[in-house]
Amino acid sequence: MYTRALNEWKEFVRIPSVSSGSVYRSHLFDCADWLAKHLQKMGMQRVLQLTSGVAPPVVYAEEMIDTAKATLLIYGHYDVQPADPLNEWKTPPFEPTVRGDYLYGRGVSDDKGQLFLHLKAVESLMAEHRLPINIKCLFEGEEEIGSTHLSNVLRTHKALFKADCAVVSDMRMLDLHQPALTYGLRGNIHAELLVTRQGTDLHSGIYGGIASNPIHGLAHIIAKLHTTKGQIALPCFYDDVFKISTAERTYMRKNGPSNAQLRREMQGHDDIGEENFTAYEQLTIRPSLTVTGISGGYQGEGSKGVIPRQARAKLNFRLVPHQDSNQIAQSLSRYVAQQCPSRLRVEVSVTAQSNAYQVNPDERVFQAASSACQNVFGRKPVLLRSGGSIPIVSTLAEQLRLPVVMMGFASPFDNLHAPNERFYIPNFFRGVETSKQFIKNLEFMRHAYH
Amino acid sequence: MYTRALNEWKEFVRIPSVSSGSVYRSHLFDCADWLAKHLQKMGMQRVLQLTSGVAPPVVYAEEMIDTAKATLLIYGHYDVQPADPLNEWKTPPFEPTVRGDYLYGRGVSDDKGQLFLHLKAVESLMAEHRLPINIKCLFEGEEEIGSTHLSNVLRTHKALFKADCAVVSDMRMLDLHQPALTYGLRGNIHAELLVTRQGTDLHSGIYGGIASNPIHGLAHIIAKLHTTKGQIALPCFYDDVFKISTAERTYMRKNGPSNAQLRREMQGHDDIGEENFTAYEQLTIRPSLTVTGISGGYQGEGSKGVIPRQARAKLNFRLVPHQDSNQIAQSLSRYVAQQCPSRLRVEVSVTAQSNAYQVNPDERVFQAASSACQNVFGRKPVLLRSGGSIPIVSTLAEQLRLPVVMMGFASPFDNLHAPNERFYIPNFFRGVETSKQFIKNLEFMRHAYH
Repeated sequence: MYTRALNEWKEFVRIPSVSSGSVYRSHLFDCADWLAKHLQKMGMQRVLQLTSGVAPPVVYAEEMIDTAKATLLIYGHYDVQPADPLNEWKTPPFEPTVRGDYLYGRGVSDDKGQLFLHLKAVESLMAEHRLPINIKCLFEGEEEIGSTHLSNVLRTHKALFKADCAVVSDMRMLDLHQPALTYGLRGNIHAELLVTRQGTDLHSGIYGGIASNPIHGLAHIIAKLHTTKGQIALPCFYDDVFKISTAERTYMRKNGPSNAQLRREMQGHDDIGEENFTAYEQLTIRPSLTVTGISGGYQGEGSKGVIPRQARAKLNFRLVPHQDSNQIAQSLSRYVAQQCPSRLRVEVSVTAQSNAYQVNPDERVFQAASSACQNVFGRKPVLLRSGGSIPIVSTLAEQLRLPVVMMGFASPFDNLHAPNERFYIPNFFRGVETSKQFIKNLEFMRHAYH
Repeated sequence: MYTRALNEWKEFVRIPSVSSGSVYRSHLFDCADWLAKHLQKMGMQRVLQLTSGVAPPVVYAEEMIDTAKATLLIYGHYDVQPADPLNEWKTPPFEPTVRGDYLYGRGVSDDKGQLFLHLKAVESLMAEHRLPINIKCLFEGEEEIGSTHLSNVLRTHKALFKADCAVVSDMRMLDLHQPALTYGLRGNIHAELLVTRQGTDLHSGIYGGIASNPIHGLAHIIAKLHTTKGQIALPCFYDDVFKISTAERTYMRKNGPSNAQLRREMQGHDDIGEENFTAYEQLTIRPSLTVTGISGGYQGEGSKGVIPRQARAKLNFRLVPHQDSNQIAQSLSRYVAQQCPSRLRVEVSVTAQSNAYQVNPDERVFQAASSACQNVFGRKPVLLRSGGSIPIVSTLAEQLRLPVVMMGFASPFDNLHAPNERFYIPNFFRGVETSKQFIKNLEFMRHAYH
């Protein structure tokens, strides 16, 4: 089973299913086909590709052994982050390669590997005729760009997705051997700023000195996004931030990643941000704002004497519980308009957004997951908040009213979203085993949620 | 002659001899070949392509009628600016197209058109057997990227370039019908800033809040390049700026372009810069600093949750007489290092530089040019300072000890360095006529300069 699973996993990664941009668009559809065929080959009773407009399909599959039994919904995403900068990869991103105990490639961890290990668990239980509950799968192709069409699909096919609980594996363990369950995620806003000067590009010799410059304007706006203390400068930005209990902060300081570990992960000496919060707190219970991209004017080799007409930046907020992504998106538009130099114009467009999410770790399904982890890894999992955002988790919880177990098998050094993404192969197979245990532990859960 | 000249001019423009970047590199060599062949066809006695390393060749040609007579050196450049953004051109940049009284295309004015009109003048005088002085041509292919190798070529072939005066046509008239002679140019520094964080790209969800961001750092640095009053913020930057006489400022205000005209040219309402200077003064006797390009992080369609490792910007200074480009380049390096946030690193690389240049309009060769303009256009030319930089002018003056006549035939609305570059066709032919007159007027100049 090991060799075959590894080969299938590689085959899955080899499809360059990048959802951002249009270059790889057809591969998203190829990837959905591959996944649907794989689910059929596994012998699942019903496999569907659900589409909404032109979006890459949601792949749905079910194995209903008994409608009186509980149903687990497995969520994953088959789309991946762009692979650039390409020249920083040691082996090509879409040619998955084993080096040491790791498999390298774009998506080996986020999220193809973590999605796939559940399939191998279900396949194994089905082969052993020991599947104790009903299984439904929900695999989307737009997670990395904000799950734009997923809500629609869930609404349209509401009956299809009825379940008693869900599991999402798109997160990390504390380290290679310490399992973790995630009970909090940050929310997300992706926005773009476009700064424009009236007229055309101008010669920087002939007009340099009197023509206002959108790059200067954009730099000025970006410089005003944070205070000198490292806080986000939007008015009232922190007003709704959830006040976390002292007990939870104490647990977090004891069990969460230390400042030293986070620094190591970042391969640097970074330690910016607000005072009075540990790095882990800063990344989970405090919001952040990152400029993820900037461009304007001449960017080729050499030089060009030009004052450009436009400059643009991409912004990414991470929000914490009780912050409202709609309100903050509006506040951003007002704020950057105020900061924009008078002879320039700034436009803001929000391309994706979601609120933060947190669940109660005392839920019974959490206990089922916790004991599965303990059995396989020999250690009780720590409870973690994640700084990342998985819009689907709030969507599942809000739209389908499900408790969502977030059980990750990635490690902090997997270079997620960066060149040389990798997955520790032994944890892939421990993940398969944990998933099997978890499903078995759900046997005694009553069919109660719908 | 009109139809043939127009067709040849178009043929010249059709060669995409972009010097910045490497994409069009081979076309630079094609263009030099085309030019050399054209000079041979004109019947010039000696045509050479002079190379320095891998640089595109300097095309040299001479027609020596009598070594006892004076020699005019005609300078021009056959390389052109990049044509991007391509989608803003009405007709393709390298398919020269006549619309109304204009020829459109990259380089029709800067500098292929202005170079070529001198050739048509020399050709015509040769055909009429009325060439009264010796002619030398010096056409380079690296002007738009700072004439990097030209000094070398001039040093290596010093004897070849001996002459009594030079003419450069790479500048503008005051308007379509008012000729102009330029007696001042600004200097130039092209530099690049690279801001780097230790380590690799990071996930903006998982690390957003504690990882320092090179884009933020770069924006901060750019925001600190100018004071709130619009002055360049480098220490001592204005210390050496040449104090211009009241008489000259009065002439400039009376004869130079008005604020309203400069605003019209810029198609906007721009009017930034220092107080107490007219726009024309701001552009000629005051230095400027423009960020001509910026890039970093994810710039494709859609979004990517990434904290990039690097961000870069291209800077362009324009310097005025008595400012030292070496000193200012050093001052820039020190200043940006001071402004760079502590967990980031900034590198500065200077890719081209030249000092400002000004000449005495009372030189006899200026009078010869002035009377030629007056004869052809029916108006006395105004004396202008230009905000642009032509490093070759200082090089010619300093290395060859020549007075340089700067006689431009471009107009302010020719979209130099921008999409839809154009040239007013009647002024091309007036330019041919003016060049002929100018050469005739030099007949009485003695061979004295070498």
